[in-house]
Amino acid sequence: MRADQQLSGIFAPVLTLLKADLSPDTGAYVRYCRWIVSQGAGLAVFGTNSEANSFSLHERLALLAALIEAGLPADRMMPGTGACALTDSVTLCAAAAKANTAAVLMLPPFYYKDIPEDGLFAFYAETIERVGDNRLKICLYHIPQISGVPIGLSLIKRLIERYPRTVVGIKDSSGDMTNTKAMLEAFHGFRVFCGSERFLVETMHRGGAGSISASANLNPAAIVDTYRHWQSDNAGERQAELNAFRAAFDGFPMIPALKRAVAHYGRYEPAKQVRPPLMPLANSNWAVLKPRLEALGFAAPGLSAALSTYS
Amino acid sequence: MRADQQLSGIFAPVLTLLKADLSPDTGAYVRYCRWIVSQGAGLAVFGTNSEANSFSLHERLALLAALIEAGLPADRMMPGTGACALTDSVTLCAAAAKANTAAVLMLPPFYYKDIPEDGLFAFYAETIERVGDNRLKICLYHIPQISGVPIGLSLIKRLIERYPRTVVGIKDSSGDMTNTKAMLEAFHGFRVFCGSERFLVETMHRGGAGSISASANLNPAAIVDTYRHWQSDNAGERQAELNAFRAAFDGFPMIPALKRAVAHYGRYEPAKQVRPPLMPLANSNWAVLKPRLEALGFAAPGLSAALSTYS
Repeated sequence: MRADQQLSGIFAPVLTLLKADLSPDTGAYVRYCRWIVSQGAGLAVFGTNSEANSFSLHERLALLAALIEAGLPADRMMPGTGACALTDSVTLCAAAAKANTAAVLMLPPFYYKDIPEDGLFAFYAETIERVGDNRLKICLYHIPQISGVPIGLSLIKRLIERYPRTVVGIKDSSGDMTNTKAMLEAFHGFRVFCGSERFLVETMHRGGAGSISASANLNPAAIVDTYRHWQSDNAGERQAELNAFRAAFDGFPMIPALKRAVAHYGRYEPAKQVRPPLMPLANSNWAVLKPRLEALGFAAPGLSAALSTYS
Repeated sequence: MRADQQLSGIFAPVLTLLKADLSPDTGAYVRYCRWIVSQGAGLAVFGTNSEANSFSLHERLALLAALIEAGLPADRMMPGTGACALTDSVTLCAAAAKANTAAVLMLPPFYYKDIPEDGLFAFYAETIERVGDNRLKICLYHIPQISGVPIGLSLIKRLIERYPRTVVGIKDSSGDMTNTKAMLEAFHGFRVFCGSERFLVETMHRGGAGSISASANLNPAAIVDTYRHWQSDNAGERQAELNAFRAAFDGFPMIPALKRAVAHYGRYEPAKQVRPPLMPLANSNWAVLKPRLEALGFAAPGLSAALSTYS
């Protein structure tokens, strides 16, 4: 597979499944990742929807090692390496590069706000220089409504010019298609992923690389199918179906809602657990969400068999 | 010293001094902490001004161990334990409790925004339960303009009611004296620190515990003096002098500016370094700040001798 094919398509920001003591349920997590890959999606492990920043460096490194050890395809992985500390950023990026993952999904450091562009550039540059591994491929991660630290066009331009073989793409989770379009127009060959599958067909028409979005945790096959057929006559209908699925989650906290749905369709009760500061989905919310999903005829084929298979 | 005396007064959010490779300059850091203590201030190491979140868990633990090893007084330390990950929060709080520090200064988990109060409560509660050490004393850290996650009165009330011997105070860095007053009025005996010495005398008049503020890194003696004499006839004049010192920094990024000033007055050039995403103070800014400090007759007595003394 060519590098530009590896870094394209649909990636799930994989939910991090937990045991009762809130430690990672590594066995179930590996099985869950296998299911996502079987549906045609890649593994954007350790993203926002993965609660990645709620886990220590050690926990993230151990989960990545477990996935590699279990034979999940590194070239379909895009681990998040978001960290406020330069030293953590280097450790996480180095581990991902060493494992030959397709790329890393890299937040800006997100504690300090109103950071000058020079400081953000220095953080990325210092990470890249210290890792010093040409296997490192960085997909920037723009999600200002959560990180509080936007990645502007001018910063992207500087990073691409300085590290053209390393800084290869971006996930735009701003929810602002105008911004996504501006990136697609400004940087030819840059891999731009929309952060919501609502923009998938439009993003592809404009030269995008695909989507990394929350609902690919539950509905990967349909999103992959739309991705593969974005040029087909009925792409609009496919897109509308994805949007209807996504809309079922409107009004609920996305991560707890997805975990509750994975627990239900996977018939694996522990999957509903989240780490504080997130809280599990309220039963009253599930009482609304469940019939919405049923009304869509949603079934999550294979998920139950995957999660319940102990290997 | 009684516990409520330990958790009062002036604390410096100690600047983390760095070597050229941006690793902590442990030797200089220990000497710098000794100077701060010699001026009468306590050590709020690993705060916002310390760039604490720019350091890994391991780096923070190693620095705390170095301070204890060097004989700095644990009962005058309030290490920051800010972390997004529950597991990191537990590790940092447990280390501080074991070292018998006066308290910890604990941010809310700051990646996710718009977190329900139940989730923040769960994060603090789970940390406290897992540490399981009655030496743990928590000073909450309210700095919504940076963390993005406010600590409201209702959350404080729940935490105090559930953990009255553990959740003992708060640093209010909101810059909103109305909020500080509301806390002081609502929670009798709760140790409320203002996050800027501009509010020191007023905070003390209203029953506050003291101040934890950036400029105590450079000007600790004067702030401590004002704290000790807040009931004196000339407290207003002393407060005005503190305000004039603080105002000298207006318009500059506080951490780089303080580090540049410590490097200058300490005659220790490496002190000016910061970790990305922060950037060193521009020379053009120092060219304005330096004469401002000189015009105030500022001298940082003893800082040069302290920083240059290798022991």
